[in-house]
Amino acid sequence: MKKYKVAVVGATGVVGKEITDTLYQRKFPVDSIKLLASKNSVGQCLPFGNDEIDVEELVETSFNDVDYALFSAGGSISEKFCPFAVKSGAVCIDNTSHFRMVDGVPLVVPEVNPESAFSHKGIIANPNCSTAQLVLPLKVLHDHYGIERIVVSTYQSVSGAGKEGITELEQQSRANLSGQDIPPSVFQHHIAYNVIPQIDVFQDNGYTKEEMKMINETKKILNDDSIKMTATTVRVPVFVGHSESVNVQLKSAFKLDDVRQLMSDMSGVTVQDDPANSVYPTPRDSAGKDDVFVGRFRHDLSIENGLEFWCVSDNLRKGAALNAVQIAETLINV
Amino acid sequence: MKKYKVAVVGATGVVGKEITDTLYQRKFPVDSIKLLASKNSVGQCLPFGNDEIDVEELVETSFNDVDYALFSAGGSISEKFCPFAVKSGAVCIDNTSHFRMVDGVPLVVPEVNPESAFSHKGIIANPNCSTAQLVLPLKVLHDHYGIERIVVSTYQSVSGAGKEGITELEQQSRANLSGQDIPPSVFQHHIAYNVIPQIDVFQDNGYTKEEMKMINETKKILNDDSIKMTATTVRVPVFVGHSESVNVQLKSAFKLDDVRQLMSDMSGVTVQDDPANSVYPTPRDSAGKDDVFVGRFRHDLSIENGLEFWCVSDNLRKGAALNAVQIAETLINV
Repeated sequence: MKKYKVAVVGATGVVGKEITDTLYQRKFPVDSIKLLASKNSVGQCLPFGNDEIDVEELVETSFNDVDYALFSAGGSISEKFCPFAVKSGAVCIDNTSHFRMVDGVPLVVPEVNPESAFSHKGIIANPNCSTAQLVLPLKVLHDHYGIERIVVSTYQSVSGAGKEGITELEQQSRANLSGQDIPPSVFQHHIAYNVIPQIDVFQDNGYTKEEMKMINETKKILNDDSIKMTATTVRVPVFVGHSESVNVQLKSAFKLDDVRQLMSDMSGVTVQDDPANSVYPTPRDSAGKDDVFVGRFRHDLSIENGLEFWCVSDNLRKGAALNAVQIAETLINV
Repeated sequence: MKKYKVAVVGATGVVGKEITDTLYQRKFPVDSIKLLASKNSVGQCLPFGNDEIDVEELVETSFNDVDYALFSAGGSISEKFCPFAVKSGAVCIDNTSHFRMVDGVPLVVPEVNPESAFSHKGIIANPNCSTAQLVLPLKVLHDHYGIERIVVSTYQSVSGAGKEGITELEQQSRANLSGQDIPPSVFQHHIAYNVIPQIDVFQDNGYTKEEMKMINETKKILNDDSIKMTATTVRVPVFVGHSESVNVQLKSAFKLDDVRQLMSDMSGVTVQDDPANSVYPTPRDSAGKDDVFVGRFRHDLSIENGLEFWCVSDNLRKGAALNAVQIAETLINV
């Protein structure tokens, strides 16, 4: 079996570590692995299976002899270093938003649009975490019934903001429980025992950048600009796992049992839908798992062909690291 | 000024205590106050302003000489004891769901439908917490533009499940932060650092009772069964304050500045809407306050005359105690 030289950029971050772990767990055929980060992280040693790998400084020449470079170190790092990686002959799989909406850069969720991956010119974009999980059930619905309009509200975990987000929730929680207070620094407001209806910065139209990412990326991945969509993205005090309340108006009638069966048949989706026994997805249960979990399917009482459901996934896995590794797997499995 | 004999039923509960405090804080003209609870609570002493009041056992004859009885001790208690209170000549203001949808029982939010209060036959119902806050901004929109359809997703605090809910979140949080685990008892699943898409029990149509309460009560309070509405109600690890992501399709065009102005003019509503400075409502900021806070107003990109906004209020206040006391105030201010 052919083996590949892989580089992980942003290897010391929450998603970077998850990428390295995922490559190992999924037995990606790794010939060699480079863990790249900023100068500050040099000296650190990180595990890859049973090996300990020295973190190297990310420089322009880091990608000589690299086949696949998985980037998760922020948009400005991708902007600067992806071109060097491409010039060195590496294929970049970029987890930042920088290239996602660029024409000619495929935006890929392997269960949904694997064919798009092969049209790359050196860079393939990994979607935003809240988008990646949502497009799996949406793909099922769009293929079978046609999607007219989507209204989604999210419940996103702090790990979407990296390890600093996790630390802030943990420290603020401890402080609150002992009657103390730690002011916010990562988030715009206190996150412990609170809910913040802002992720990323605001645009002129009143939506946040996160909301516009969901809307635009969903249309690009499903390859249909005619889909109507609106989103409200909200940070909640959960460590790992994004949840989404999804309202979809379909173009044709459906039976709930058919929808559940179609979802069960979809690769990467697990149906958890037994309300009588309080079975439905929760972020706590999704943490550390690969699948997108869906449940609470019901006919929307307010509109014809309306479907309500609930969608949860580990934002570090399907929302980031897993999807990136799956894109690499798609390319090598030709 | 005339003074009134008041009874609080369920006086040792979270909402009961909030009712007693609210009566005092708002200078309700109290001649005497009875704090009623189950036999188990007899012996307790609770504050009413600077006075200490002995908790009395709730019995059939508790309401002799009572003018207003504010019930918040669960539906079965209201079912059993409201009739005795009415027979004794008291007016019951009931915070449980038991009588809310009964024909002839007014369901009242004083800023929205105060006139309904006067048609009572001894019992006036206080709406569900998540409904009470929502109908204020909806009333504004319905009066000025007409509401076609509402899609709402909620982020509801644990205090909606009483003091046991608060204790469970606190204890599970402490346990989690020290690597321990306390299994759920109040909620269906772990609530610390988790999100649970179930409040109350499931109905045959796949909606929960909480979701159907929101839908049915909203139509009753706005006195318009033609409003189309769907809801997903979700418990989040917040102590106090319910948040709601609200998508409304209006019947006519609107300008955002007009909507903000109309909301500002509405009694009981405060607009917090300056995204550039991260100003929008959060439950933490709403706790202990009376108003319904609204913000994040924007044109829905997916539909004509669509409006997105975010609505937050202290569920123990406007969602329960405050609204109940305001109903009594409405009646005595004739």
